[in-house]
Amino acid sequence: MEYGLVIVNTGNGKGKTTAALGVGLRAVGHGMKVLMLQFIKGSWHTGELDAVKRLEPYFRIVQLGQGFVKTKKGDQPEEVIENARVSWDYAKKEILSGLYDVIILDEINNMIDYGLLNIDDVVSVLKERPQKLNVVVTGRNAHDKIIDLADLVTEMREIKHPFKKGIRAQKGIEF
Amino acid sequence: MEYGLVIVNTGNGKGKTTAALGVGLRAVGHGMKVLMLQFIKGSWHTGELDAVKRLEPYFRIVQLGQGFVKTKKGDQPEEVIENARVSWDYAKKEILSGLYDVIILDEINNMIDYGLLNIDDVVSVLKERPQKLNVVVTGRNAHDKIIDLADLVTEMREIKHPFKKGIRAQKGIEF
Repeated sequence: MEYGLVIVNTGNGKGKTTAALGVGLRAVGHGMKVLMLQFIKGSWHTGELDAVKRLEPYFRIVQLGQGFVKTKKGDQPEEVIENARVSWDYAKKEILSGLYDVIILDEINNMIDYGLLNIDDVVSVLKERPQKLNVVVTGRNAHDKIIDLADLVTEMREIKHPFKKGIRAQKGIEF
Repeated sequence: MEYGLVIVNTGNGKGKTTAALGVGLRAVGHGMKVLMLQFIKGSWHTGELDAVKRLEPYFRIVQLGQGFVKTKKGDQPEEVIENARVSWDYAKKEILSGLYDVIILDEINNMIDYGLLNIDDVVSVLKERPQKLNVVVTGRNAHDKIIDLADLVTEMREIKHPFKKGIRAQKGIEF
């Protein structure tokens, strides 16, 4: 019997979501079923979704985070809090469903960091997950309790960034 | 006019190739043409190639490195040196062809690090590339001259690794 892993991609660098997407693509190639839940709206573009749609039904992407665009810490509007609750209920059902081999919780670290999700709730659902399920958690500032739970943690560190050189990145290339 | 970037994924952590694959997938979603050249044999599995094949002709993967499996630094057998030469000639033609929007040179850093490719040759071809072409360079120990040339460098740092916890990773999940 194989055990699913908890994989965390964190850090201030690029490639956290992109690497998770790559994990999903590889898993699909091995005949696994993949679900990507995007907790934060606006970090993905239509074109990217179109590419992944070619891989359906093996690779499903669901955009949660309606109304929640990247924001700052601190007090959040009531609708944002309510949306986070609905998003987490949805994620929880999918995590416990047994339907998938890989679930990517994209930018859930940020949600926890913003105080929109309760860390203990998230940890307890991850611990209760089906044994075979791999979970990939992305976003900056991964919580210590997530790190403790994880089997594999990679920190993406930014060394150089194109905007610092004043170059306009091509659409579709900037992570 | 947009300019292509040179993106480097390096470091001892996981996700260098996987993030590059994700960049390719996103680019395909934006209607770009992507070529991934794998310099080192054995780092990819059939299943992964099958997944990407669903994206052909937009995303092409070519396996170079026939006969070159991951190895150590130092003296290399003659056929390995010859194969590196042939692989680089192939890569060079593709880089200069103007046919692609994104070319991923997977694990080319290792080839340079092993002394199998000449760093100055690689840098000069990257500088001569078509203006629109984005190049993603992966592998450990990126050469300083590659870092200098790059627009975006991300270091993937391993914080935790599953084998350290004694858990056997599922096939298709380990990066």
